[in-house]
Amino acid sequence: MTVFDPGQPDGTNRSLDIAISADGSPEPGRLYTIAARCGMAVRVNAGQTLTISNPSGHQVCDFWIFASDDLGEYSSMEHLHTALGSIFPKVGDGITSNLRHDLMTITEDTSPGVHDTVIASCDHARYQQLGCAEYHDNCADNLRQALIAIGLRAPAIPAPFNLWMNVPVRADGSTSFEPPVSAPGDQMSFRAETDVVAVMSACPQDVTPVNGVGTTPDTLEFRVTGG
Amino acid sequence: MTVFDPGQPDGTNRSLDIAISADGSPEPGRLYTIAARCGMAVRVNAGQTLTISNPSGHQVCDFWIFASDDLGEYSSMEHLHTALGSIFPKVGDGITSNLRHDLMTITEDTSPGVHDTVIASCDHARYQQLGCAEYHDNCADNLRQALIAIGLRAPAIPAPFNLWMNVPVRADGSTSFEPPVSAPGDQMSFRAETDVVAVMSACPQDVTPVNGVGTTPDTLEFRVTGG
Repeated sequence: MTVFDPGQPDGTNRSLDIAISADGSPEPGRLYTIAARCGMAVRVNAGQTLTISNPSGHQVCDFWIFASDDLGEYSSMEHLHTALGSIFPKVGDGITSNLRHDLMTITEDTSPGVHDTVIASCDHARYQQLGCAEYHDNCADNLRQALIAIGLRAPAIPAPFNLWMNVPVRADGSTSFEPPVSAPGDQMSFRAETDVVAVMSACPQDVTPVNGVGTTPDTLEFRVTGG
Repeated sequence: MTVFDPGQPDGTNRSLDIAISADGSPEPGRLYTIAARCGMAVRVNAGQTLTISNPSGHQVCDFWIFASDDLGEYSSMEHLHTALGSIFPKVGDGITSNLRHDLMTITEDTSPGVHDTVIASCDHARYQQLGCAEYHDNCADNLRQALIAIGLRAPAIPAPFNLWMNVPVRADGSTSFEPPVSAPGDQMSFRAETDVVAVMSACPQDVTPVNGVGTTPDTLEFRVTGG
């Protein structure tokens, strides 16, 4: 029997080599850049704030939060929908875990608030289905690698909170992949309610227009402050 | 470090004792009843059809599908949304896995087609948040127990396909828990595209109206045919 290991990348990129530190602890206030098409993990202690910014304005961030003391507890979009009574989180909303604890709270969103909580991260199988013959960087592998790069391992690929990703859900249930409506420099801040490991992937999707039309996948930036 | 074990029930009910057989294999064509508030698992071989029916018309079924040869591959609503371009699956649609394979295909739906794919299964934490002081039967534990009852263990609690569950998603993203619009005797059929273990929970939710107004959680029925 083949047993699927959610922590094992299907392929690799620079995400394995660009950790911010050996265990993911940040220098307070330092601005870090996530290379285009890559993922990074950062530890955020209870009370600290993680700010993620979007220099180009068109770059989607696949975002996951794990509880530091138990990686088996993580942000869960299906639990979030129940907690919020909405598929669109906004400032003041907690990001709920699969154990129904708020791991972080959204404290700032300079964009129009269009983000996605219903679509899976892109992954190796997705790009194969989209016709890619070669390995394509993907958010699931970026998550796996970002955790490996700080000595951890993904126990699952949770449904992501896709920051700035524009996937309208219409009255008939239909969805589509549309360009972001965010602007250059838009940022979102998240206050940690407990010690967490946050993982961000600068989505390498360049087959559908989720990262903009006529653009290429770009960088993201983040910093940890306070606490 | 406490490590969350997704396969371990928070509490138990009769689901542990009502397996259809030691390994979940069904008698072809036999009608099985899922006791109210309980869960059951059944093996469905490639080419066979599982038909789930709703005698009362108001009973929600939390539904999951696992690949028999690797329980780490299972139905994934976030991947389904990408595959279908919709949050509302309909006849002819495949139910996609976290590895983006269709595990089963919907071949019949006698209801108006209102089902939910964005809300987590009810679980112990949910009922605590709803004010229940004592243990309350819940779909996550029913999944865990139904698998234990046939000698297996849940490697995760995947986001469920909630048959007949009526959770409108409005243009502003807001959701609500509404009574089902299905009728007594409505049924859905699923053809297995590979050998699977299907798990069904007769949702014990009686705090919100998802299982009807002025009703109590009721039974479900199923049978496996063909192949």
